[in-house]
Amino acid sequence: MMDYPPTVRRLIESLRQLPSVGPRSAERLALHILRAEPALAQTLAASISGARDAVRPCERCGFYAETPVCEICAAADRDPHTVCIVEQPTDVITFEKSGAFKGLYHVLGGSLSPLDDIGPEELHIPKLINRLRGQGAREAILALNTDVKGETTTLYLARELRQLGIKVTRLATGISIGSPLEYADSLTLTHALGDRKEV
Amino acid sequence: MMDYPPTVRRLIESLRQLPSVGPRSAERLALHILRAEPALAQTLAASISGARDAVRPCERCGFYAETPVCEICAAADRDPHTVCIVEQPTDVITFEKSGAFKGLYHVLGGSLSPLDDIGPEELHIPKLINRLRGQGAREAILALNTDVKGETTTLYLARELRQLGIKVTRLATGISIGSPLEYADSLTLTHALGDRKEV
Repeated sequence: MMDYPPTVRRLIESLRQLPSVGPRSAERLALHILRAEPALAQTLAASISGARDAVRPCERCGFYAETPVCEICAAADRDPHTVCIVEQPTDVITFEKSGAFKGLYHVLGGSLSPLDDIGPEELHIPKLINRLRGQGAREAILALNTDVKGETTTLYLARELRQLGIKVTRLATGISIGSPLEYADSLTLTHALGDRKEV
Repeated sequence: MMDYPPTVRRLIESLRQLPSVGPRSAERLALHILRAEPALAQTLAASISGARDAVRPCERCGFYAETPVCEICAAADRDPHTVCIVEQPTDVITFEKSGAFKGLYHVLGGSLSPLDDIGPEELHIPKLINRLRGQGAREAILALNTDVKGETTTLYLARELRQLGIKVTRLATGISIGSPLEYADSLTLTHALGDRKEV
Protein backbone atom coordinates (compact mmCIF):
# COMPACT_ATOMS: atom_id res chain seq x y z
CA MET A 1 0.00 0.00 0.00
CA MET A 2 1.07 3.57 -0.67
CA ASP A 3 1.06 6.17 2.07
CA TYR A 4 1.37 9.97 2.23
CA PRO A 5 4.70 11.39 1.01
CA PRO A 6 7.46 11.41 3.71
CA THR A 7 7.11 15.13 4.60
CA VAL A 8 3.38 14.67 5.22
CA ARG A 9 4.03 11.62 7.41
CA ARG A 10 6.62 13.61 9.38
CA LEU A 11 4.14 16.45 9.85
CA ILE A 12 1.46 14.03 11.13
CA GLU A 13 4.03 12.49 13.47
CA SER A 14 5.05 15.92 14.86
CA LEU A 15 1.46 16.99 15.43
CA ARG A 16 0.82 13.78 17.36
CA GLN A 17 3.30 14.98 20.00
CA LEU A 18 0.82 17.65 21.04
CA PRO A 19 -1.53 16.96 23.95
CA SER A 20 -4.89 15.32 23.11
CA VAL A 21 -3.97 15.00 19.43
CA GLY A 22 -4.43 11.36 18.35
CA PRO A 23 -3.57 9.80 14.98
CA ARG A 24 -6.86 10.84 13.33
CA SER A 25 -6.74 14.47 14.52
CA ALA A 26 -3.07 14.74 13.59
CA GLU A 27 -3.97 13.62 10.06
CA ARG A 28 -6.86 16.09 9.90
CA LEU A 29 -4.68 18.98 11.14
CA ALA A 30 -1.88 18.08 8.70
CA LEU A 31 -4.22 17.94 5.71
CA HIS A 32 -5.75 21.25 6.72
CA ILE A 33 -2.28 22.79 6.80
CA LEU A 34 -1.58 21.41 3.32
CA ARG A 35 -4.90 22.52 1.86
CA ALA A 36 -5.05 26.01 3.40
CA GLU A 37 -3.36 29.11 2.02
CA PRO A 38 0.46 28.81 2.28
CA ALA A 39 0.36 31.82 4.66
CA LEU A 40 -1.26 29.68 7.36
CA ALA A 41 1.64 27.21 7.44
CA GLN A 42 4.21 30.03 7.34
CA THR A 43 2.58 31.94 10.19
CA LEU A 44 2.08 28.83 12.26
CA ALA A 45 5.66 27.62 11.85
CA ALA A 46 7.03 31.11 12.53
CA SER A 47 4.90 31.65 15.62
CA ILE A 48 5.90 28.27 17.06
CA SER A 49 9.63 28.95 16.68
CA GLY A 50 9.13 32.60 17.58
CA ALA A 51 7.41 31.91 20.88
CA ARG A 52 9.76 29.09 21.81
CA ASP A 53 12.83 31.24 21.14
CA ALA A 54 11.54 34.46 22.69
CA VAL A 55 9.81 33.23 25.81
CA ARG A 56 11.69 32.34 28.99
CA PRO A 57 10.74 32.33 32.67
CA CYS A 58 10.87 35.76 34.35
CA GLU A 59 13.99 35.73 36.49
CA ARG A 60 12.09 37.10 39.46
CA CYS A 61 8.72 35.31 39.49
CA GLY A 62 8.95 32.52 36.92
CA PHE A 63 6.00 33.74 34.76
CA TYR A 64 6.41 33.85 30.97
CA ALA A 65 8.56 36.76 29.82
CA GLU A 66 10.25 37.99 26.67
CA THR A 67 12.57 40.23 28.70
CA PRO A 68 14.64 39.16 31.76
CA VAL A 69 11.85 40.46 34.03
CA CYS A 70 8.16 39.91 33.08
CA GLU A 71 5.60 42.67 32.46
CA ILE A 72 3.94 42.09 35.82
CA CYS A 73 7.16 42.32 37.88
CA ALA A 74 8.20 45.38 35.83
CA ALA A 75 4.86 47.21 36.25
CA ALA A 76 5.03 50.21 38.55
CA ASP A 77 1.45 49.91 39.82
CA ARG A 78 1.65 46.47 41.44
CA ASP A 79 1.98 46.05 45.20
CA PRO A 80 5.33 44.34 45.94
CA HIS A 81 4.31 43.63 49.54
CA THR A 82 1.76 40.99 48.60
CA VAL A 83 2.97 37.91 46.74
CA CYS A 84 0.65 35.24 45.40
CA ILE A 85 2.33 31.83 45.08
CA VAL A 86 1.04 29.57 42.30
CA GLU A 87 2.10 26.29 40.72
CA GLN A 88 2.00 27.12 36.99
CA PRO A 89 2.39 30.19 34.75
CA THR A 90 -1.17 29.57 33.54
CA ASP A 91 -2.44 30.16 37.08
CA VAL A 92 -1.14 33.74 36.79
CA ILE A 93 -3.42 34.30 33.80
CA THR A 94 -6.39 32.88 35.72
CA PHE A 95 -5.81 35.49 38.45
CA GLU A 96 -5.18 38.30 35.96
CA LYS A 97 -8.43 37.52 34.14
CA SER A 98 -10.33 37.96 37.41
CA GLY A 99 -8.73 41.40 37.90
CA ALA A 100 -8.99 40.74 41.66
CA PHE A 101 -5.28 40.79 42.51
CA LYS A 102 -2.87 43.72 42.31
CA GLY A 103 0.23 42.25 43.96
CA LEU A 104 3.04 40.19 42.44
CA TYR A 105 3.22 36.45 41.71
CA HIS A 106 5.65 33.67 42.29
CA VAL A 107 5.46 30.59 40.06
CA LEU A 108 6.82 27.42 41.68
CA GLY A 109 6.65 25.36 38.50
CA GLY A 110 4.92 22.45 40.27
CA SER A 111 4.35 21.05 43.74
CA LEU A 112 6.44 19.01 46.17
CA SER A 113 6.54 15.36 45.22
CA PRO A 114 9.17 13.27 47.01
CA LEU A 115 8.34 10.22 44.86
CA ASP A 116 9.29 12.17 41.72
CA ASP A 117 12.38 13.66 43.42
CA ILE A 118 10.80 17.11 43.47
CA GLY A 119 11.87 18.79 46.69
CA PRO A 120 12.08 22.46 47.80
CA GLU A 121 15.24 23.03 45.70
CA GLU A 122 13.52 21.89 42.48
CA LEU A 123 10.69 24.37 43.13
CA HIS A 124 13.16 27.21 43.82
CA ILE A 125 11.73 27.64 47.31
CA PRO A 126 15.03 29.01 48.75
CA LYS A 127 14.90 31.62 45.96
CA LEU A 128 11.30 32.45 46.91
CA ILE A 129 12.32 32.96 50.55
CA ASN A 130 15.16 35.30 49.53
CA ARG A 131 12.82 37.20 47.30
CA LEU A 132 10.13 37.68 49.95
CA ARG A 133 12.80 38.89 52.35
CA GLY A 134 14.43 41.16 49.74
CA GLN A 135 11.30 43.01 48.64
CA GLY A 136 9.93 43.41 52.18
CA ALA A 137 6.82 41.26 51.56
CA ARG A 138 4.11 41.50 54.20
CA GLU A 139 1.79 38.77 52.97
CA ALA A 140 2.23 35.55 51.03
CA ILE A 141 -0.97 34.12 49.55
CA LEU A 142 -0.77 30.39 48.86
CA ALA A 143 -2.85 29.60 45.79
CA LEU A 144 -1.77 26.06 45.00
CA ASN A 145 -3.94 23.20 43.78
CA THR A 146 -6.07 21.42 46.35
CA ASP A 147 -4.84 17.93 45.42
CA VAL A 148 -2.60 15.94 47.76
CA LYS A 149 0.67 17.31 46.37
CA GLY A 150 -0.65 20.89 46.38
CA GLU A 151 -1.83 20.51 50.00
CA THR A 152 1.55 19.11 51.08
CA THR A 153 3.27 22.07 49.44
CA THR A 154 0.85 24.54 51.04
CA LEU A 155 1.52 23.10 54.51
CA TYR A 156 5.29 23.03 53.93
CA LEU A 157 5.38 26.61 52.63
CA ALA A 158 3.08 27.90 55.39
CA ARG A 159 5.57 26.66 57.98
CA GLU A 160 8.64 27.99 56.15
CA LEU A 161 7.22 31.39 55.29
CA ARG A 162 5.78 32.10 58.72
CA GLN A 163 9.38 32.02 59.98
CA LEU A 164 10.00 35.16 57.91
CA GLY A 165 7.57 36.98 60.18
CA ILE A 166 5.08 37.64 57.37
CA LYS A 167 1.38 36.90 57.16
CA VAL A 168 0.73 33.65 55.30
CA THR A 169 -2.77 33.10 53.89
CA ARG A 170 -4.44 30.66 51.52
CA LEU A 171 -7.45 30.93 49.21
CA ALA A 172 -10.84 30.26 50.77
CA THR A 173 -12.46 26.97 49.80
CA GLY A 174 -16.19 26.70 49.29
CA ILE A 175 -18.87 26.28 46.68
CA SER A 176 -18.41 27.87 43.25
CA ILE A 177 -20.45 30.95 42.49
CA GLY A 178 -22.91 30.34 39.67
CA SER A 179 -22.43 26.57 39.69
CA PRO A 180 -25.45 24.55 40.89
CA LEU A 181 -25.09 23.16 44.40
CA GLU A 182 -25.68 19.64 43.12
CA TYR A 183 -22.33 19.79 41.32
CA ALA A 184 -20.37 20.55 44.49
CA ASP A 185 -18.36 17.53 45.67
CA SER A 186 -18.68 16.35 49.28
CA LEU A 187 -15.26 17.61 50.35
CA THR A 188 -15.94 21.11 49.02
CA LEU A 189 -19.34 21.09 50.66
CA THR A 190 -17.84 19.99 54.00
CA HIS A 191 -15.38 22.92 53.79
CA ALA A 192 -18.12 25.35 52.77
CA LEU A 193 -20.25 24.22 55.68
CA GLY A 194 -17.38 24.44 58.19
CA ASP A 195 -16.51 27.98 57.03
CA ARG A 196 -20.16 29.15 56.90
CA LYS A 197 -20.69 32.86 57.53
CA GLU A 198 -23.50 34.74 59.27
CA VAL A 199 -25.57 36.86 56.89
CA MET B 1 -5.00 42.89 33.54
CA MET B 2 -1.80 41.39 32.18
CA ASP B 3 -1.84 38.79 29.47
CA TYR B 4 0.68 36.38 27.97
CA PRO B 5 3.69 37.99 26.25
CA PRO B 6 3.02 38.97 22.58
CA THR B 7 4.79 35.95 21.02
CA VAL B 8 2.67 33.59 23.12
CA ARG B 9 -0.52 35.43 22.13
CA ARG B 10 0.50 35.18 18.47
CA LEU B 11 1.14 31.46 18.86
CA ILE B 12 -2.31 30.93 20.44
CA GLU B 13 -3.87 32.97 17.61
CA SER B 14 -2.11 30.88 14.93
CA LEU B 15 -3.13 27.60 16.52
CA ARG B 16 -6.76 28.75 16.56
CA GLN B 17 -6.71 28.77 12.76
CA LEU B 18 -6.56 24.98 12.80
CA PRO B 19 -9.79 22.98 12.50
CA SER B 20 -11.62 22.13 15.76
CA VAL B 21 -9.11 24.10 17.83
CA GLY B 22 -10.99 26.59 20.02
CA PRO B 23 -9.53 29.28 22.30
CA ARG B 24 -9.01 26.90 25.25
CA SER B 25 -7.35 24.14 23.23
CA ALA B 26 -5.17 26.68 21.41
CA GLU B 27 -3.96 27.95 24.80
CA ARG B 28 -3.32 24.41 26.03
CA LEU B 29 -1.39 23.49 22.86
CA ALA B 30 0.66 26.70 23.02
CA LEU B 31 1.62 26.18 26.67
CA HIS B 32 2.56 22.59 25.94
CA ILE B 33 4.85 23.80 23.16
CA LEU B 34 6.46 26.28 25.57
CA ARG B 35 6.89 23.78 28.38
CA ALA B 36 8.14 20.83 26.32
CA GLU B 37 11.74 20.27 25.23
CA PRO B 38 12.81 22.94 22.69
CA ALA B 39 13.24 20.09 20.16
CA LEU B 40 9.46 19.64 19.98
CA ALA B 41 8.89 23.22 18.81
CA GLN B 42 11.79 23.03 16.35
CA THR B 43 10.60 19.75 14.84
CA LEU B 44 7.01 20.91 14.67
CA ALA B 45 7.84 24.24 13.01
CA ALA B 46 10.23 22.55 10.58
CA SER B 47 7.78 19.81 9.63
CA ILE B 48 4.99 22.35 9.01
CA SER B 49 7.11 24.46 6.66
CA GLY B 50 8.76 21.35 5.24
CA ALA B 51 5.53 19.66 4.25
CA ARG B 52 3.94 22.86 2.95
CA ASP B 53 6.98 23.61 0.77
CA ALA B 54 7.62 20.08 -0.48
CA VAL B 55 4.13 18.81 -1.17
CA ARG B 56 2.23 19.64 -4.37
CA PRO B 57 -0.48 17.85 -6.33
CA CYS B 58 0.78 15.08 -8.63
CA GLU B 59 0.58 16.51 -12.14
CA ARG B 60 -1.12 13.36 -13.44
CA CYS B 61 -3.61 12.35 -10.75
CA GLY B 62 -3.74 15.21 -8.23
CA PHE B 63 -2.69 13.11 -5.19
CA TYR B 64 -0.03 14.51 -2.82
CA ALA B 65 3.46 14.30 -4.27
CA GLU B 66 6.95 15.59 -3.52
CA THR B 67 8.01 14.96 -7.11
CA PRO B 68 6.16 16.08 -10.27
CA VAL B 69 4.49 12.64 -10.47
CA CYS B 70 3.34 10.86 -7.27
CA GLU B 71 4.58 7.49 -6.02
CA ILE B 72 1.42 5.73 -7.16
CA CYS B 73 1.50 7.07 -10.73
CA ALA B 74 5.24 6.31 -10.88
CA ALA B 75 4.89 2.72 -9.59
CA ALA B 76 5.52 0.05 -12.23
CA ASP B 77 3.13 -2.52 -10.73
CA ARG B 78 -0.13 -0.55 -10.96
CA ASP B 79 -2.69 -1.23 -13.69
CA PRO B 80 -3.02 1.93 -15.84
CA HIS B 81 -6.18 0.60 -17.51
CA THR B 82 -8.33 1.01 -14.39
CA VAL B 83 -8.73 4.50 -12.93
CA CYS B 84 -10.53 5.19 -9.68
CA ILE B 85 -11.96 8.72 -9.53
CA VAL B 86 -12.20 10.28 -6.03
CA GLU B 87 -12.96 13.72 -4.61
CA GLN B 88 -10.07 14.26 -2.18
CA PRO B 89 -6.43 13.14 -1.80
CA THR B 90 -7.42 11.57 1.55
CA ASP B 91 -9.78 9.22 -0.29
CA VAL B 92 -6.71 7.74 -2.02
CA ILE B 93 -5.30 6.81 1.39
CA THR B 94 -8.61 5.17 2.37
CA PHE B 95 -8.40 2.94 -0.71
CA GLU B 96 -4.69 2.23 -0.23
CA LYS B 97 -5.28 1.15 3.38
CA SER B 98 -7.80 -1.44 2.16
CA GLY B 99 -5.22 -2.86 -0.25
CA ALA B 100 -8.15 -3.77 -2.54
CA PHE B 101 -7.26 -1.60 -5.53
CA LYS B 102 -4.25 -1.95 -7.82
CA GLY B 103 -5.09 0.60 -10.53
CA LEU B 104 -4.42 4.34 -10.65
CA TYR B 105 -6.38 7.22 -9.13
CA HIS B 106 -7.70 10.56 -10.25
CA VAL B 107 -8.39 13.23 -7.64
CA LEU B 108 -11.02 15.76 -8.69
CA GLY B 109 -10.44 18.06 -5.70
CA GLY B 110 -14.17 18.34 -4.93
CA SER B 111 -17.53 17.82 -6.59
CA LEU B 112 -19.65 19.82 -9.02
CA SER B 113 -21.42 22.68 -7.30
CA PRO B 114 -22.98 25.29 -9.63
CA LEU B 115 -23.95 27.47 -6.64
CA ASP B 116 -20.27 27.79 -5.65
CA ASP B 117 -19.19 28.27 -9.29
CA ILE B 118 -17.52 24.87 -9.36
CA GLY B 119 -18.06 23.41 -12.81
CA PRO B 120 -16.25 20.71 -14.86
CA GLU B 121 -13.33 23.09 -15.59
CA GLU B 122 -12.66 23.72 -11.89
CA LEU B 123 -12.49 19.96 -11.25
CA HIS B 124 -10.10 19.43 -14.21
CA ILE B 125 -12.59 17.09 -15.88
CA PRO B 126 -11.33 17.91 -19.41
CA LYS B 127 -7.85 16.91 -18.16
CA LEU B 128 -9.28 13.66 -16.76
CA ILE B 129 -10.88 12.84 -20.11
CA ASN B 130 -7.59 13.46 -21.94
CA ARG B 131 -5.77 11.31 -19.43
CA LEU B 132 -8.18 8.37 -19.73
CA ARG B 133 -7.89 8.55 -23.50
CA GLY B 134 -4.09 8.93 -23.37
CA GLN B 135 -3.34 5.93 -21.17
CA GLY B 136 -5.87 3.65 -22.87
CA ALA B 137 -8.09 3.25 -19.81
CA ARG B 138 -10.65 0.44 -20.00
CA GLU B 139 -12.59 1.15 -16.82
CA ALA B 140 -13.32 4.26 -14.75
CA ILE B 141 -14.57 3.56 -11.22
CA LEU B 142 -16.53 6.46 -9.74
CA ALA B 143 -15.89 6.59 -5.98
CA LEU B 144 -17.34 9.97 -5.04
CA ASN B 145 -19.27 10.86 -1.93
CA THR B 146 -22.92 9.83 -1.78
CA ASP B 147 -24.18 13.33 -0.89
CA VAL B 148 -26.17 15.42 -3.39
CA LYS B 149 -23.09 17.09 -4.92
CA GLY B 150 -21.23 13.79 -5.17
CA GLU B 151 -24.23 12.13 -6.83
CA THR B 152 -24.57 14.97 -9.34
CA THR B 153 -20.90 14.62 -10.20
CA THR B 154 -21.20 10.84 -10.52
CA LEU B 155 -24.13 11.16 -12.97
CA TYR B 156 -22.35 13.89 -14.96
CA LEU B 157 -19.09 11.91 -15.19
CA ALA B 158 -20.88 8.65 -16.03
CA ARG B 159 -22.43 10.33 -19.08
CA GLU B 160 -19.19 12.03 -20.19
CA LEU B 161 -16.92 9.04 -19.67
CA ARG B 162 -19.19 6.53 -21.39
CA GLN B 163 -18.67 8.56 -24.57
CA LEU B 164 -15.01 7.49 -24.46
CA GLY B 165 -16.19 3.94 -25.04
CA ILE B 166 -14.88 2.73 -21.67
CA LYS B 167 -16.67 0.83 -18.92
CA VAL B 168 -17.89 3.21 -16.20
CA THR B 169 -18.70 1.70 -12.80
CA ARG B 170 -19.46 3.01 -9.32
CA LEU B 171 -18.93 1.56 -5.84
CA ALA B 172 -21.67 -0.72 -4.54
CA THR B 173 -23.87 0.77 -1.81
CA GLY B 174 -25.13 -1.37 1.05
CA ILE B 175 -24.80 -2.04 4.74
CA SER B 176 -21.35 -1.74 6.35
CA ILE B 177 -19.58 -4.94 7.25
CA GLY B 178 -19.14 -5.28 11.01
CA SER B 179 -21.49 -2.43 11.83
CA PRO B 180 -24.76 -3.44 13.56
CA LEU B 181 -27.81 -3.39 11.27
CA GLU B 182 -29.57 -0.97 13.63
CA TYR B 183 -27.02 1.73 12.69
CA ALA B 184 -27.81 1.53 8.96
CA ASP B 185 -29.81 4.54 7.76
CA SER B 186 -33.01 3.97 5.78
CA LEU B 187 -31.54 5.06 2.45
CA THR B 188 -28.60 2.67 2.77
CA LEU B 189 -30.98 -0.11 3.79
CA THR B 190 -33.25 0.60 0.81
CA HIS B 191 -30.23 0.31 -1.50
CA ALA B 192 -28.99 -2.84 0.23
CA LEU B 193 -32.44 -4.41 -0.12
CA GLY B 194 -32.79 -3.44 -3.77
CA ASP B 195 -29.36 -4.89 -4.61
CA ARG B 196 -29.86 -8.09 -2.57
CA LYS B 197 -27.98 -11.14 -3.79
CA GLU B 198 -28.91 -14.81 -3.81
CA VAL B 199 -26.76 -16.91 -1.46
